[in-house]
Amino acid sequence: MASPEIEALSGALARLPGLGPRSARRAVLHLLKRRETSLATLLGALQAVNDRLSTCSICGNVDTSDPCAVCADPRRDARALCVVEEVADLWALERSRLFPGRFHVLGGRLSALEGVRPEDLAIDGLIRRVANGGVDEVVLAMNATLEGQTTAHYLAERLEQFPVRLTQLAHGLPVGGELDYLDEGTLAQALRARRPLA
Amino acid sequence: MASPEIEALSGALARLPGLGPRSARRAVLHLLKRRETSLATLLGALQAVNDRLSTCSICGNVDTSDPCAVCADPRRDARALCVVEEVADLWALERSRLFPGRFHVLGGRLSALEGVRPEDLAIDGLIRRVANGGVDEVVLAMNATLEGQTTAHYLAERLEQFPVRLTQLAHGLPVGGELDYLDEGTLAQALRARRPLA
Repeated sequence: MASPEIEALSGALARLPGLGPRSARRAVLHLLKRRETSLATLLGALQAVNDRLSTCSICGNVDTSDPCAVCADPRRDARALCVVEEVADLWALERSRLFPGRFHVLGGRLSALEGVRPEDLAIDGLIRRVANGGVDEVVLAMNATLEGQTTAHYLAERLEQFPVRLTQLAHGLPVGGELDYLDEGTLAQALRARRPLA
Repeated sequence: MASPEIEALSGALARLPGLGPRSARRAVLHLLKRRETSLATLLGALQAVNDRLSTCSICGNVDTSDPCAVCADPRRDARALCVVEEVADLWALERSRLFPGRFHVLGGRLSALEGVRPEDLAIDGLIRRVANGGVDEVVLAMNATLEGQTTAHYLAERLEQFPVRLTQLAHGLPVGGELDYLDEGTLAQALRARRPLA
């Protein structure tokens, strides 16, 4: 229908998560209509990221510098290490600006179904960072899924030989959560972990 | 949170229709994780389109050549001209491969609300193409909206001085449409335009 170049762009966009063939075509039209603004901006941004992209050799974060901005920041507390499954999780925690320490990205979660074994994740690097000392607390910030929790338990076993405090994120009601609409699993977690009123 | 380059890419993607800040971040992560495949492919595709993009000086289609592939194709029937509001509409009709003629893109629709007047659309170019002769039929393929139909009526008035057949797309039940779920406007159109059984 359109030229091969436009078709190729449409196909490349359609492969992004959240976009399908139809929305990719709409996005292409949007770009074509706004050549100087949208198209040039997106092109420049992609080019810049492509030129400078690297994976942090310390924590596994993706950034345009190695070590990444978090690892290179001297104000970050090196004694607290937060282990996450994916770079997306690191970014989510960074957006909240609540964790003052450093990170370690596993690059996935243990999964018998998908055949992901410990050696497929960045676990050796984590053990090495903890073994090198200087870390007081390791926060196992895995997802609250079966596989995430399996991974957290596995890591806890591997790390218990070191003199570090192992913690995990609290499970319970999300902010704004109404009991009536919550799943039973969350309710059970929240009840089990109930705390005395201050 | 992430580097300025990654933030800029995320922002540029978030401005595409169908993507918001959240899905743009997911798309960025998808690209960062698949640097050689997704990122390089998208970058190349954008670059190619940016380098060769042009608006067809005959019909207003957006393509990587001028005249566009449709206007340049000698097998297209120059006697039938299909007028559409947007390039997206042209592409939708081209995907159906049902129209053997050529196109004319208005670049919008008349709208009192949005202040779009006849001189804001590519109407003079349309009149010129029809006045030059060689056109037997003009299909006014506007959207079945108030503004689309207003535009069609306006064009019909402007074109009635020429010896061409003016037609418009049929309105009625969409394929697979169930009476029970259709809006009253569509039902009314379908009933008004009812045809004898063959």
